[in-house]
Amino acid sequence: MSKVVFGQLGRLKPEKIQEYEALHGDPWPEVLKTIHDCNLRNYSIFRHEDLVFAYFEYVGQDYDADMAKMELCPHTQAWWTRTKPCFVKFSIRPDSEFYADMKQIFYFP
Amino acid sequence: MSKVVFGQLGRLKPEKIQEYEALHGDPWPEVLKTIHDCNLRNYSIFRHEDLVFAYFEYVGQDYDADMAKMELCPHTQAWWTRTKPCFVKFSIRPDSEFYADMKQIFYFP
Repeated sequence: MSKVVFGQLGRLKPEKIQEYEALHGDPWPEVLKTIHDCNLRNYSIFRHEDLVFAYFEYVGQDYDADMAKMELCPHTQAWWTRTKPCFVKFSIRPDSEFYADMKQIFYFP
Repeated sequence: MSKVVFGQLGRLKPEKIQEYEALHGDPWPEVLKTIHDCNLRNYSIFRHEDLVFAYFEYVGQDYDADMAKMELCPHTQAWWTRTKPCFVKFSIRPDSEFYADMKQIFYFP
């Protein structure tokens, strides 16, 4: 099984930091199940001030197809109505709704 | 064996981005060996513009002791004389020489 690692950067609205952390401190089981079903593993989110960084590993065969599948999950859609408004839109990258992929420049297992 | 994940944020000098990437595109074997000997695994670095994010997992029993051991490695010391000047000092956190630890707010294996 192949593994691809992803790093994503986002910027939160200062008044939404507490809410974003509270949501992720008690994530919805249905959302976690969908993450797993869409072949994401070892998922971490870190925060420094208003910057958030997400790291995860993709272990499936078709990332775009799995992300399309994730978008169809009604629980995940409801989760995103709570989490996406926490972000400063377009602050990191103009084509990003919330998290933007970063370029990986080093990997050592 | 326990595992602790770390996320670290740094900011590069714009004129040093290319050099920092080149160094990590061809890392010194002795430095990689020391990373492994000091119980760091699954080490990734990501970049977006001047922001760099490092993710790694610590699988040892005494992180501070292993970091002290790393600091004694002459190859690592030499590596740091090349990499640390690539950073904007004190831009992220006043007590950080280059990378600053971030707060982990979510984990899902």
